[in-house]
Amino acid sequence: MERKVYIKNTPLEQALELFLKELEDNAYFSLEKERIEVLSSLGRILASPAYARRSSPHYPASAMDGIAVWAADTYGASEINPVRLDKDKYMEVDTGDYVPQAYDAVIMIEDVNFEQGQAVIIKPAVPWQHIRSVGEDLVAMDMIAPSLTTIGPYELASFVTAAINELEVVKKPLVAIIPTGTELLDRGSDDMNPGEIVESNSKMLMALCEQWGAKAFRHEIVVDDQELLRQAVQRVKDQADMIVICSGSSAGREDYTSAVIEEAGKLLIHGIATRPGKPAILGLIDGKPVIGVPGYPISAQLVFQLFARPVLYKKQGRQIPADTMIDCRVARKIASSMGVDEFVYVNVARIKEDYLAYPLNRGAGITTSLVKADGVLHIERGQEGLEAGSRCRIVLNKPQEILDRTLVCIGSHDLSIDFLADLLQSQHKIRLVSANAGSMGGIFSLMRSECHLAGVHLLDEENGDYNITYLKKYLPDRPWILINLLHREQGLIVKKGNPFSINGIKDLSDNRIRYLNRQPGAGTRVLFDYLLRQHGISPDCINGYHREEYTHLAVAAAVKNDTADCALGVYASARALDLDFIPIVEERYDLCILPDLIKPQYLESLKQVIRSQEFRQRVSEFGGYSLVNSGDTIHSSYL
Amino acid sequence: MERKVYIKNTPLEQALELFLKELEDNAYFSLEKERIEVLSSLGRILASPAYARRSSPHYPASAMDGIAVWAADTYGASEINPVRLDKDKYMEVDTGDYVPQAYDAVIMIEDVNFEQGQAVIIKPAVPWQHIRSVGEDLVAMDMIAPSLTTIGPYELASFVTAAINELEVVKKPLVAIIPTGTELLDRGSDDMNPGEIVESNSKMLMALCEQWGAKAFRHEIVVDDQELLRQAVQRVKDQADMIVICSGSSAGREDYTSAVIEEAGKLLIHGIATRPGKPAILGLIDGKPVIGVPGYPISAQLVFQLFARPVLYKKQGRQIPADTMIDCRVARKIASSMGVDEFVYVNVARIKEDYLAYPLNRGAGITTSLVKADGVLHIERGQEGLEAGSRCRIVLNKPQEILDRTLVCIGSHDLSIDFLADLLQSQHKIRLVSANAGSMGGIFSLMRSECHLAGVHLLDEENGDYNITYLKKYLPDRPWILINLLHREQGLIVKKGNPFSINGIKDLSDNRIRYLNRQPGAGTRVLFDYLLRQHGISPDCINGYHREEYTHLAVAAAVKNDTADCALGVYASARALDLDFIPIVEERYDLCILPDLIKPQYLESLKQVIRSQEFRQRVSEFGGYSLVNSGDTIHSSYL
Repeated sequence: MERKVYIKNTPLEQALELFLKELEDNAYFSLEKERIEVLSSLGRILASPAYARRSSPHYPASAMDGIAVWAADTYGASEINPVRLDKDKYMEVDTGDYVPQAYDAVIMIEDVNFEQGQAVIIKPAVPWQHIRSVGEDLVAMDMIAPSLTTIGPYELASFVTAAINELEVVKKPLVAIIPTGTELLDRGSDDMNPGEIVESNSKMLMALCEQWGAKAFRHEIVVDDQELLRQAVQRVKDQADMIVICSGSSAGREDYTSAVIEEAGKLLIHGIATRPGKPAILGLIDGKPVIGVPGYPISAQLVFQLFARPVLYKKQGRQIPADTMIDCRVARKIASSMGVDEFVYVNVARIKEDYLAYPLNRGAGITTSLVKADGVLHIERGQEGLEAGSRCRIVLNKPQEILDRTLVCIGSHDLSIDFLADLLQSQHKIRLVSANAGSMGGIFSLMRSECHLAGVHLLDEENGDYNITYLKKYLPDRPWILINLLHREQGLIVKKGNPFSINGIKDLSDNRIRYLNRQPGAGTRVLFDYLLRQHGISPDCINGYHREEYTHLAVAAAVKNDTADCALGVYASARALDLDFIPIVEERYDLCILPDLIKPQYLESLKQVIRSQEFRQRVSEFGGYSLVNSGDTIHSSYL
Repeated sequence: MERKVYIKNTPLEQALELFLKELEDNAYFSLEKERIEVLSSLGRILASPAYARRSSPHYPASAMDGIAVWAADTYGASEINPVRLDKDKYMEVDTGDYVPQAYDAVIMIEDVNFEQGQAVIIKPAVPWQHIRSVGEDLVAMDMIAPSLTTIGPYELASFVTAAINELEVVKKPLVAIIPTGTELLDRGSDDMNPGEIVESNSKMLMALCEQWGAKAFRHEIVVDDQELLRQAVQRVKDQADMIVICSGSSAGREDYTSAVIEEAGKLLIHGIATRPGKPAILGLIDGKPVIGVPGYPISAQLVFQLFARPVLYKKQGRQIPADTMIDCRVARKIASSMGVDEFVYVNVARIKEDYLAYPLNRGAGITTSLVKADGVLHIERGQEGLEAGSRCRIVLNKPQEILDRTLVCIGSHDLSIDFLADLLQSQHKIRLVSANAGSMGGIFSLMRSECHLAGVHLLDEENGDYNITYLKKYLPDRPWILINLLHREQGLIVKKGNPFSINGIKDLSDNRIRYLNRQPGAGTRVLFDYLLRQHGISPDCINGYHREEYTHLAVAAAVKNDTADCALGVYASARALDLDFIPIVEERYDLCILPDLIKPQYLESLKQVIRSQEFRQRVSEFGGYSLVNSGDTIHSSYL
């Protein structure tokens, strides 16, 4: 069992510099051109200046609706002594009409009276008035746009006007993407085997190529076999301007990528001091760039962004667009290793006058972090991590206006929050960003003014009520409003057919039953601990008490996939994954809102959505919910 | 001869409000959906939330390269008392591999030694360490993205990962564009007749539709005939979500557009209080929007932007992206009529710390103003115009970084300035914006610090030198540098074959010869006046002395198109348009640069380009130029 170790951990800027220099040395960046039809040039980049082929207008043209005259014929005209022109001394013209040489001025129709076939003029015309001279817009040989102009609607219209039928544009670089891995499938299905993975990276990278002005094609999936990978590279290397090998770049046994590059060309770098992205490979084959991107989607995205993007832009003679930066406060502590450039994906939202950055799950396998991310925090090599509350600069990848229209909901997880988010977006253009931190996590976020609202369902064992006791305790001096979202059934989620015949909490002390718990601070955890005490069961008797997940759907998924046998959760999760459900209790799930942090019209929109027919319908269809108090103000600390 | 008059001059916001309300009343804005393959969904907009169909991972997966173990088997392991696992007690796994139920932890390969087939462990494993739980990334039924999300590369990858194969997306609105006008041609050619116009508006509007997420198709050109236009509208109205009729909306005789709309549906508005754009028409046919856009390209663009854009965005359930605004100082006075909303296209450049807005030619027929424009100044109805130097807000349509990399050259016109611009752009990513204001205009701009440099060729009759006398006079207290761009031949531009047998200035007193002059302040005008005095000819003896154009190419175009017989200008213009040329004098053409306004590295780039082989070659190939002093510093006021 031989394991390769990374050649090195090359610092980011050093790796990029070397890569670009080697390509430069191979004259890779000389501009490649092609001639295309003007009508298919939208979005393309001019490789040479566009010169007008024809003037516009190419004839003296009337700038008005009126009559063309010889100006000298109208001299002396006044209200008292109008000049009368016979039919052969004037010509009716509309805007854009040719004004023949016999005329040198146009009089607006509003200034002309017609009497018995004569045109009556009361003001002399000035020579060349209201005549567009030849080339007023464009003169033949005018440079309409210089090299490297991106052709938009207006350039297109101007080129057509100037009788340009063909253009010389920059050839789009062609990127060959080779996915490798025996475990990969082209397409997901309902009956995938454990260990099988849908190959999605190539699709993401192809889409990124398109965004950066390149074209990409995908080689079919290559199983883990060095010779087959070698053949795939040979197959694409002549037509492609860049080769990208997806996956196979870890130090795992499937790592043939670096060997294949070394054999076919030159291996420059294996291993880069970034996180994520470390196992990246850079090389050249026939003077063209080859990039080995890691298999984890976030690593793949980052490596592609860091190395493919600058190469593809430079290859097209283009500048990479400047980053849009925003100054933020980080909501949570962010750890970072001193020796690497770290890239942390974040949500960003505006809370009052400040922007807060919320680090997303940093797992390199979490594709949803890319979907959710509003931007990236780059912690440079040599910098330490960031303390909660400290300031940072975020590179935005969404328009800032979206951040201004964002509500942040941190706290307990419920499926109906997704319905809320969807309806707020479609009906009110408000984005709801939610993070699952459990009910107590939500309250702590409220305390730190780091969210606009929190989803909470915390049982007070003393009085059987929910939430209010906790909020009074933790937010004693703050105004807050508690609005009911819904009531929901909590119960035991078990496999279809309930193989262990679980009927209630008492059955969980059976040690064969693998229980899956929720994290401390979750309302469901509070409930579970309460139920255990109620039944006099010690946590130690529960097999799996210390194994935790963060959402209702996650525990249900574990039961579904047989990594656990039972979990406490809501009916909706059991139903979503087609599992059995033993109801235990109905609980109240509320939203706690801080009115001093939320814009009044957004609070209004939120209430509207909760009370809307669409929301009620979607929740009811799902089942396991009651809407008797939905939208009611349960309590307010200040009204 | 019957002329229609505009029904009214409806204020902009009133027209838009009425238009949107009528469409709303016709339930036009209900979202239309279609199902498409996930792989062709890039750039599309979700019509309903995307829910994961499958969890990812859908099995417990190793998060590391290493071995899978049953954690309890490793309890007690330490450096002193390592635990040795036999082959049947562990399993080699790579990142992403399935971890079967017999194992509940993964130990990283770096922490394992292999001795005689046994795995030697020196630290106990914690249950579930380095195992990605089912659904860590995505749980089946998770909402990946809410309605109205635009699908980018990351959404696409996530959907594929979640085994989503089809999506419900917003149907792209289909726009039918009908160009009308007997004078229109589909395509420009070299032998167009006077009065014929290449139809370019439909191409511009189609490209704009694409930018706004809609699709467009073009009906063939309809000649000016009310019945034919009626038939065209009938032909497209069922499939299209919006009908756009190009041209024919002026009050000219070809105006059938409003009549056709009125007959087929409802005419809402004819005539809007904007400039440009006034003759716009708004209506509904079968509850769908119909827009009659004026024939002038700038009017067409503005009307489409003001009325089609909000409708098309709303039809897709989308928000119009927020405008990027920038605070500017206007370089020139901008007149505006009180009763209309005026839209003025401007160039914007940064001069030191301030942004200056330079109004472009406001003629509605000038397509190049749209190409050149960096943004739009909106002068609202009820506001008066702006004085030179006053502040305003510009809506940018180019990235701000381009404005920061812009050099402004105002002054005399020479074709070689286009070469400079092209090479600065392609080699140094610096944009050169030039405006023709004549040499004196350039000097006045320098005096007001409104440009970085000026092209000048002003003869001092006293000493025969160029420029220095003028600069010393007008910029007495300013640092300036005068760099020679080139020498050029000035002479008389005449028709091919020189039909009037013109040999020199003295021949111009022949009254049959239609001369075309340059504007006062142009170096060529100064030269012409000097030559007239030298020959003792009075301006009154020159037929056309008072008829003026602003560039060398414009006067040459007039000669080419027989609206003039002769003009003074540079050889390059005569050559560009294949005209004859009678050389009169060689003059020096310099660039006067203000070093306190230009970034040192931009000045350096400018000098590099002037001295570059590429520049010298392009200029030499053109002919009529001498490069003996090109790039030399002729004078400096402060060195």
